Amino acid sequence: MSKALEMRPERLFSSDPTQRAIALRLHREVEQLPIISPHGHTDPRWFAENQRFANPTELLIQPDHYVYRMLYSQGIGLDTLGIRRSDGSAAAVDPRAVWRLFAEHYHLFRGTPSAYWLNYVFSQVFGLEVRLNSATADLYYDTIDAALATPACKPRALFERYNIEVLATTESPLDTLEHHRALATSGWSGRVITAFRPDPVLDPDYEGFRDNLAQLGDMTGSDCFDYAQYLDALRQRRAFFKTLGATSTDHGHPTAKTADLTRAEAEKLFARVTAPGPCAAADAELFRAHMLVEMAAMSLEDGLVLQIHPGASRNHNAGVFARYGRDKGADIPMRTNYVADLKPLLDRYGNETALSVILFTLDESNYSRELAPLAGHYPMLKLGPPWWFHDSPEGMLRFRRATHEVAGFANVVGFNDDTRAFLSIPARHDMARRMDCVHLAELVASHRLEEDEAAEIIVDLSYSFAKAAYKL
Amino acid sequence: MSKALEMRPERLFSSDPTQRAIALRLHREVEQLPIISPHGHTDPRWFAENQRFANPTELLIQPDHYVYRMLYSQGIGLDTLGIRRSDGSAAAVDPRAVWRLFAEHYHLFRGTPSAYWLNYVFSQVFGLEVRLNSATADLYYDTIDAALATPACKPRALFERYNIEVLATTESPLDTLEHHRALATSGWSGRVITAFRPDPVLDPDYEGFRDNLAQLGDMTGSDCFDYAQYLDALRQRRAFFKTLGATSTDHGHPTAKTADLTRAEAEKLFARVTAPGPCAAADAELFRAHMLVEMAAMSLEDGLVLQIHPGASRNHNAGVFARYGRDKGADIPMRTNYVADLKPLLDRYGNETALSVILFTLDESNYSRELAPLAGHYPMLKLGPPWWFHDSPEGMLRFRRATHEVAGFANVVGFNDDTRAFLSIPARHDMARRMDCVHLAELVASHRLEEDEAAEIIVDLSYSFAKAAYKL
Amino acid sequence: MSKALEMRPERLFSSDPTQRAIALRLHREVEQLPIISPHGHTDPRWFAENQRFANPTELLIQPDHYVYRMLYSQGIGLDTLGIRRSDGSAAAVDPRAVWRLFAEHYHLFRGTPSAYWLNYVFSQVFGLEVRLNSATADLYYDTIDAALATPACKPRALFERYNIEVLATTESPLDTLEHHRALATSGWSGRVITAFRPDPVLDPDYEGFRDNLAQLGDMTGSDCFDYAQYLDALRQRRAFFKTLGATSTDHGHPTAKTADLTRAEAEKLFARVTAPGPCAAADAELFRAHMLVEMAAMSLEDGLVLQIHPGASRNHNAGVFARYGRDKGADIPMRTNYVADLKPLLDRYGNETALSVILFTLDESNYSRELAPLAGHYPMLKLGPPWWFHDSPEGMLRFRRATHEVAGFANVVGFNDDTRAFLSIPARHDMARRMDCVHLAELVASHRLEEDEAAEIIVDLSYSFAKAAYKL
Repeated sequence: MSKALEMRPERLFSSDPTQRAIALRLHREVEQLPIISPHGHTDPRWFAENQRFANPTELLIQPDHYVYRMLYSQGIGLDTLGIRRSDGSAAAVDPRAVWRLFAEHYHLFRGTPSAYWLNYVFSQVFGLEVRLNSATADLYYDTIDAALATPACKPRALFERYNIEVLATTESPLDTLEHHRALATSGWSGRVITAFRPDPVLDPDYEGFRDNLAQLGDMTGSDCFDYAQYLDALRQRRAFFKTLGATSTDHGHPTAKTADLTRAEAEKLFARVTAPGPCAAADAELFRAHMLVEMAAMSLEDGLVLQIHPGASRNHNAGVFARYGRDKGADIPMRTNYVADLKPLLDRYGNETALSVILFTLDESNYSRELAPLAGHYPMLKLGPPWWFHDSPEGMLRFRRATHEVAGFANVVGFNDDTRAFLSIPARHDMARRMDCVHLAELVASHRLEEDEAAEIIVDLSYSFAKAAYKL
Repeated sequence: MSKALEMRPERLFSSDPTQRAIALRLHREVEQLPIISPHGHTDPRWFAENQRFANPTELLIQPDHYVYRMLYSQGIGLDTLGIRRSDGSAAAVDPRAVWRLFAEHYHLFRGTPSAYWLNYVFSQVFGLEVRLNSATADLYYDTIDAALATPACKPRALFERYNIEVLATTESPLDTLEHHRALATSGWSGRVITAFRPDPVLDPDYEGFRDNLAQLGDMTGSDCFDYAQYLDALRQRRAFFKTLGATSTDHGHPTAKTADLTRAEAEKLFARVTAPGPCAAADAELFRAHMLVEMAAMSLEDGLVLQIHPGASRNHNAGVFARYGRDKGADIPMRTNYVADLKPLLDRYGNETALSVILFTLDESNYSRELAPLAGHYPMLKLGPPWWFHDSPEGMLRFRRATHEVAGFANVVGFNDDTRAFLSIPARHDMARRMDCVHLAELVASHRLEEDEAAEIIVDLSYSFAKAAYKL
Repeated sequence: MSKALEMRPERLFSSDPTQRAIALRLHREVEQLPIISPHGHTDPRWFAENQRFANPTELLIQPDHYVYRMLYSQGIGLDTLGIRRSDGSAAAVDPRAVWRLFAEHYHLFRGTPSAYWLNYVFSQVFGLEVRLNSATADLYYDTIDAALATPACKPRALFERYNIEVLATTESPLDTLEHHRALATSGWSGRVITAFRPDPVLDPDYEGFRDNLAQLGDMTGSDCFDYAQYLDALRQRRAFFKTLGATSTDHGHPTAKTADLTRAEAEKLFARVTAPGPCAAADAELFRAHMLVEMAAMSLEDGLVLQIHPGASRNHNAGVFARYGRDKGADIPMRTNYVADLKPLLDRYGNETALSVILFTLDESNYSRELAPLAGHYPMLKLGPPWWFHDSPEGMLRFRRATHEVAGFANVVGFNDDTRAFLSIPARHDMARRMDCVHLAELVASHRLEEDEAAEIIVDLSYSFAKAAYKL
């Protein structure tokens, strides 16, 4: 007999009756609010073309590095799962066989956020009522596959059913934004905007950096090996991104390092990092650092919100990177030092109330030591939500408990789902809203906050702050 | 209709009925105990002169960097609040207008310790029964202003009403201690003592270091550019501070670095750091490090307890520092390494049972990794309470949970309020006692401690440990 | 009147009724399971010779650095406790007088894991029903001393009574394993195996490193100053250890540094670190780093599981080390960097499913930042349990909450008691099982896990994972 898959109304809430009752009341204030998704990695093509999703495996397993990193850690090879290699090829696998393998190992995800998100999708989108395991693998596959063939599961229909008010995708300056352009003229009312992620043309260590600059030059009619023209080309692309809705930029540098070079120093450095041949590690780091300050300067001009996402040792697994390329679940967090690294940026712009810089971290020891004190002082700074490995019930609770006392609530920007797994978006916002209810209920139950205050805050955290912080 | 401001008897306690009942019983053991305040920054002039406090804004907003840092982070300029600049001037502001601005933004403090402290003062000292917001701003201003004009709100009367057994202020060796001298002969029974904070004459990076040495020389009849006479001058001032009640010294170095130089090395270094012109950063750091060991040597002689408060990147905001000077809410914590940094001090004095060194941190990752293990071994070391950004309900709970299992309770010194906000002192001790009740109730409720044991410990934590650790 | 010493069935469990009921049900699944103790430091001589333990002080105080570090921190000298010095001598102390001193200070341990372990032993092994303090010191001493004289308290009898399925001790390659050999032919059914801890012959900073190599050469008929023969000698000893049950190796390096040198580089380095005279610190570190990779290579050949226990600043107290030698409660944790330090090892072997490397830490900031992400990706890696200073209720809870969401449960190896305090082994496993029940109950009560799932996981955590991870 298969066991029931249950999505209880009080899920994630404390079992303490006082706290649970408060959390349920707070949650009622926000459960119907639209979703604001200001930072994510869904594919705009889905909404532009509105084609059906191919099959359960291609939709839910193969693109989700949260899923296959766990399977891989337990010895299941990426080829066995049909993960695409960096040469574009993929092992010929039967999607149903991959699904069965996944189902057989689904117990590995017990207690993880992946299980929460997936169970939510299984239950709320596909109406499944029993749990996933070997015995139910085919039932799942068939049910999901059948649903995907229906109009209700096409991208635009899901977008509407999910009550998404605005969804930002993330593109490189080298992207033509063809799908966003198509969307703009499509007549569809869904608001899908882009965001400007210039790592490929800002980071000398990025694969193909010089080629990327050449391409940027072609796109903008500039010589992007000339520093002044390079900056202008970036300005031009930012302006173009704004025409397709962009309100923010995003920077995934390894560290939070910033530098405020003179024009002459910057030009010399630019010449070194763009010269043919290998780039010195220190030069690459300094150039990224300097360009963050340049990006802040441009943000002051054009109003784009600047997001800094540092602290990942990207592509840590050399063997996996060589065979499968980047973003394959092998990024590992490392220590980050905001207090020293951001000083040049803060010395220049920290007191600007017209600039908005949002900080993320993968190093939780920063929460109370650096991030809450910085955000609780500098007008320019705000904190992003718990990110990536910390986008989880415990991660969210640690974030709130470690930041709210020093930074308050208003110096934090609300939730980002930051996902490429489109189907999971409501599940992720559901988790975030519920965990904020858990945190606020804890404060109310111990009389650190009044319930009417919490009822206002939960709306801010679930909806208003994200809209305001991202100028949406 | 204005909402009630309530100070519930069970505030801060867990909503779990078992834990709450235990916490209430434990709290009854300590709520009437006198306040021991062994480390703080109140102004001894208040008690010496016993003048009335000027007005609500000057009393509660303008001196409190916890308050204006939060307002500043949300774009309210320091001039708007009338914060004094480093040149001694201040924008001409109407105190009532500042109060109204504060009231309008009081929601920013929801869930912060500042709100707890302020609400306690509003309710317990001024008898206010509705919450502070725009609508009640004038009621608040008028009520507080009227109360400040009464004898009951003069400094000595508050000191007595607050049941303070002893209060330490903090002074530089360059201070004449005139107010403490006046107090000593005033006939008033309140015990207000000084503490010796020599950063201005120990830290080559301190503003005016050479001038400070010259002044120290004048005060002591020594040539403070001669190392031997410099040390003697420090000894002389320590002895003088002791005559006015001092039992401790305090050192706010950027790091916890210590160094045990030979006399010849120390003399050479002293010559370098006291020479005219800029001082090399490494020399300044080494001199501070060496002087901590010298201070420990003097403490062995004269019995003063030595406090190390490292880990703040002081005056991080260059613009604010240039205009408003130090201590303007722009200090940011940074990583601290006690295990390596303290080794020279510990190699020399770590096993001295007659010496007492109290460690503080702004880097919570030290709690379980370094501080609890160090304090749980070295006879000379004890841990100070959660400090500054961690002087909060969550901060206190994290501290206790991360230290008591390794260091026990007896290697921690009880609470310090460390405040310049005199009115908030009972509020801060109230929070600390309550949070210790929360922690102990958690241990008792899960049978990790018996309730009769907890009842002894709560008295130690609230009263006895501070008296013993600071030799009061 | 003496106060009752109580071991309540619900001890350590949450006081929340929902969570407590779940924890009690989960605990029933595992409380009778045999103990798997795959990593520890008990003395194999006890089981080989099966002599009675000498007296309460020699059994419970003098070998337990958890106990005397706390006493020492409060000013009780190690000589007063009769701790053996590094020259082999010890102060002449009366064991009963030491016991009384311990009893008088037993309140220092309130709320610590030591108190939990000791109270468990007092109650469950010796049947004591009142708490230890000055008044009951002699009752305790006499009761325990009398019990130790009985057959039921001899080592093999306790081993059986404790329901230990397998117990690993830890030996140096220089150990003859005479006690394990004696056990192997003794006819006793208890399974006591060895583990291979080669620090004395891998770490150039280890006391007597060159002598150790000479001795290793004598034992294996090799010239251990020749690199190839040195490696062969290690292989030979590993094989010998395997014949006496070893399934794992253990490495207590100061850092997690690894290095993958070429054969030529390794030979040159080996020549330098084995040359007479002092060894450069960087060479010592690099050699340890390289040898970890060599050990991994040997593990791939012979199947021994490799454990890395980094992050202790050993013998931090210079005075205590000079007089009493190593392992005297003066090891202090320090920051560890796994993401950079392990990269050479992971680049070479990270994707090997046939290799098993278990990581431990004393730096809890690594849990969510580095360790859970590494273990949640690399097939070769698993996480050891919370270790040493973190082997405690709060430590275990922090570990689970910080790792399970990213690494899942299956990438963690279950519990190690890691103790030399044989009598406390069931107490330690009892604490670990209970704290896992607390964690799982918390997940079940907030609907993050179903109870039937938790019931499977608790058996894995308490028993199956340790057996599988250590190939027992």
